[in-house]
Amino acid sequence: MEPIIVKYVERPELKDPVLIEGLPGVGNVGKIAAEYLKDNLDTKLMVEIFSKYFPPQVLMKGDGTLYLVRNQLWYYKDPKGRNDLIFLVGDYQGMSSEGQYELSYKVLEIAKEFGVKKIFTLGGYGTGRLADKPRIFGAATNQELVKEMKEYGVYFSETEPSGGIVGAAGLLLGLGMEIFGMEGVCIMGETSGYFSDPRSAYFVVQIVKEYFDLDLDMEELKFRSEEIGEITSQLKEEEMKQESEQREDLGYIG
Amino acid sequence: MEPIIVKYVERPELKDPVLIEGLPGVGNVGKIAAEYLKDNLDTKLMVEIFSKYFPPQVLMKGDGTLYLVRNQLWYYKDPKGRNDLIFLVGDYQGMSSEGQYELSYKVLEIAKEFGVKKIFTLGGYGTGRLADKPRIFGAATNQELVKEMKEYGVYFSETEPSGGIVGAAGLLLGLGMEIFGMEGVCIMGETSGYFSDPRSAYFVVQIVKEYFDLDLDMEELKFRSEEIGEITSQLKEEEMKQESEQREDLGYIG
Amino acid sequence: MEPIIVKYVERPELKDPVLIEGLPGVGNVGKIAAEYLKDNLDTKLMVEIFSKYFPPQVLMKGDGTLYLVRNQLWYYKDPKGRNDLIFLVGDYQGMSSEGQYELSYKVLEIAKEFGVKKIFTLGGYGTGRLADKPRIFGAATNQELVKEMKEYGVYFSETEPSGGIVGAAGLLLGLGMEIFGMEGVCIMGETSGYFSDPRSAYFVVQIVKEYFDLDLDMEELKFRSEEIGEITSQLKEEEMKQESEQREDLGYIG
Amino acid sequence: MEPIIVKYVERPELKDPVLIEGLPGVGNVGKIAAEYLKDNLDTKLMVEIFSKYFPPQVLMKGDGTLYLVRNQLWYYKDPKGRNDLIFLVGDYQGMSSEGQYELSYKVLEIAKEFGVKKIFTLGGYGTGRLADKPRIFGAATNQELVKEMKEYGVYFSETEPSGGIVGAAGLLLGLGMEIFGMEGVCIMGETSGYFSDPRSAYFVVQIVKEYFDLDLDMEELKFRSEEIGEITSQLKEEEMKQESEQREDLGYIG
Repeated sequence: MEPIIVKYVERPELKDPVLIEGLPGVGNVGKIAAEYLKDNLDTKLMVEIFSKYFPPQVLMKGDGTLYLVRNQLWYYKDPKGRNDLIFLVGDYQGMSSEGQYELSYKVLEIAKEFGVKKIFTLGGYGTGRLADKPRIFGAATNQELVKEMKEYGVYFSETEPSGGIVGAAGLLLGLGMEIFGMEGVCIMGETSGYFSDPRSAYFVVQIVKEYFDLDLDMEELKFRSEEIGEITSQLKEEEMKQESEQREDLGYIG
Repeated sequence: MEPIIVKYVERPELKDPVLIEGLPGVGNVGKIAAEYLKDNLDTKLMVEIFSKYFPPQVLMKGDGTLYLVRNQLWYYKDPKGRNDLIFLVGDYQGMSSEGQYELSYKVLEIAKEFGVKKIFTLGGYGTGRLADKPRIFGAATNQELVKEMKEYGVYFSETEPSGGIVGAAGLLLGLGMEIFGMEGVCIMGETSGYFSDPRSAYFVVQIVKEYFDLDLDMEELKFRSEEIGEITSQLKEEEMKQESEQREDLGYIG
Repeated sequence: MEPIIVKYVERPELKDPVLIEGLPGVGNVGKIAAEYLKDNLDTKLMVEIFSKYFPPQVLMKGDGTLYLVRNQLWYYKDPKGRNDLIFLVGDYQGMSSEGQYELSYKVLEIAKEFGVKKIFTLGGYGTGRLADKPRIFGAATNQELVKEMKEYGVYFSETEPSGGIVGAAGLLLGLGMEIFGMEGVCIMGETSGYFSDPRSAYFVVQIVKEYFDLDLDMEELKFRSEEIGEITSQLKEEEMKQESEQREDLGYIG
Repeated sequence: MEPIIVKYVERPELKDPVLIEGLPGVGNVGKIAAEYLKDNLDTKLMVEIFSKYFPPQVLMKGDGTLYLVRNQLWYYKDPKGRNDLIFLVGDYQGMSSEGQYELSYKVLEIAKEFGVKKIFTLGGYGTGRLADKPRIFGAATNQELVKEMKEYGVYFSETEPSGGIVGAAGLLLGLGMEIFGMEGVCIMGETSGYFSDPRSAYFVVQIVKEYFDLDLDMEELKFRSEEIGEITSQLKEEEMKQESEQREDLGYIG
């Protein structure tokens, strides 16, 4: 068996395409963001990727049928004629370190075929805290991109993310830069990491939308984001209440 | 060493053969079912599979001799001339994700050689509860099979199994569909998952028997099934007794 | 890097050689036994095996120098002209299931080159109990060997070892039988499994000595065996004392 | 993807070069030592190594840009015309046993290309205790090197390190000796193993400096070493205070 099996559904001609990755990860921020973009733009499936580096698993579609876990590439033709986009989405990332490298390398090979020179990877940055408004962190392959992304409100920190970036969101940029001569940026939405976080994804998508000047309806993601926003507010209120009660309790003792 | 070593014992001519898999798994339902079918039909060994993806282990036969762990294919010639059957049985599934993929892929290659176009995989669906009568869940590669299997009493749920199907029972269908153009269905007997469950296997075998109109003596499996049925009833009675006692205890307190 | 690197130190002509394996395992019984045989017979180093399936480790010789972990084959020319012997000894077994298969397969390839048709694997059978006199269990590739080894006092059980035999001691026989057409027997000395057990190894070596009619001085191993025997007796006495005290304590309560 | 990707930045002519390794490990002693040497001698980057055996990770540079984890070789031209040096430094060692072997083997292949015949590996020897002055342990591939290194104050013990040497520091010597005909020594600075230990590294660097008669400014490492020295003294004082208090407490009881 080929370790990675690539099925080409279509081989479109693409103009200055940018690869945009969003696979499962912290708070599923990248996955939610990339799938929202894919689902709400006029995209078409171009490539399917199966691999022994994914779990040995089929998933249910809800109608009694099943499908093998996979990654997919979908393309979007930019009506304004600037950058076409290729979205990398899927059920899983590689299960092992080696699988991660092999899969990212293969995706970059495919991306190169279609002329990709720039990569956006989308992800979550887990802080363990409930934030009022999630900040959007960035990490780029070069200083020019750092400067450019700052104009879109992306925050570049000297110290964060302190552990670097693990998985496809990091590897696509690292291998892309070192082996394939591509440049790119990772856009990370702050998230508690405790649950799937469409709110953080909302702010990530906003940046992609603005950067590529996309005609994208944000309503549904905004709605899901506000739901999370309310839950977060309630959780934060309860936290504060508990803390103040504890302070009172201590007061009695003190 | 070849990662998977295939020994052909016989290369029979088979008519529209269907592959029926039953390897160790939840409640060993699939293994018990497939081995019961293999042992109680007039089957012959055709292929033996050894692999470094199995544990590095030999097992005892009970007479002082040992054998290397393996998977096997046994064939059954349908006297009615419709579908010959190939049974996949064995001591273990692959130990790693990658081994699972490699082994399922190899079995599908062999199956293709013999003309297999349809696959039945048998397994258990662990619920953590003792069921009075186990339901039989299904998951298929296409809607036609979903409809067909419903007529045999297989239950297709929108939500279950929620985690999909892991291992050979899922992979053979997923890879079979995507890479080998085969169709198939997974038949899962509900089981607690706490012990080897011939009762759940009994209902799985019944469906296979009816679907392929097999002349199969069910007596022994029925006997083992009823033993489990009695144990289950006793366990359930004790559970209920304990619960009602607890309720009484609480009554005194309340 | 070749996954397994084989260095031939010498390529001796051997007469009907038998491979005798003793690598680290339960109670180190096999390792102690095989190394005692190797050290106390007139053996010569013939092959060294390095591999990425061993741990990435060097060990100290005690004089400030180090050596890379390895397996070795040593040969013994039978002065009586019946069976020459090849001993497989080493620092480690393969670290992964796949490494175990690869290493056993490679050893069998080398053994075949030198004409090996029969294999003895030596090991420990961990019972978790301190035995007065360890029994010697066997498992063989065929009934003839079972009968033959019974005459040497090897005990073949219908049920033990219930989990089969894991590692090189099992694989060399399983792969040897299935792929290389060799026959063989595993000789397992009963051991608690709590410590390195030269006493169990002593009884294993006795059987090898008798079977091959070896002119072997057993004094040193006997001495180490008796030390263990004394420790075992003391431990057992203390166990019994504690148990009887506990019984008395319970008597007061009862 | 090639499992290990080697990028040659420069292919210098080197005179009797010695490979000096210092990768992350116990107390990061080897890493601190080798990087201090690399940074404070007039070295140039010659080779970069990327690999799927490293973690799938990019790290941050502090200016918003990222880099893929890697190992590097830097060379130093000895102005006195004796031994040029090649330093092996990097973010990680291989993640798996097999990766460790593959990476060390590849480094040795590269080293051989440039004429390396001798290897120094630098590491920490974790004792779990805070030492007043760390001893420097050694382990060499031959007796001549043992003798030679003793003159530089390296301590060769009959029993330590009792578990041998694990990882690149051991493998480079073991594989270098067995497969590439190189000789070498591992220099291990005693360290508690609880934190990064520039103090232990200081004494390791001292030995390398003296052995190769390097014109090396030790000031910065001395400063960092003294900081650790003070912390160690304070921690030891507190330990002793606590112990004496405990003894007093026990006195009251006794």
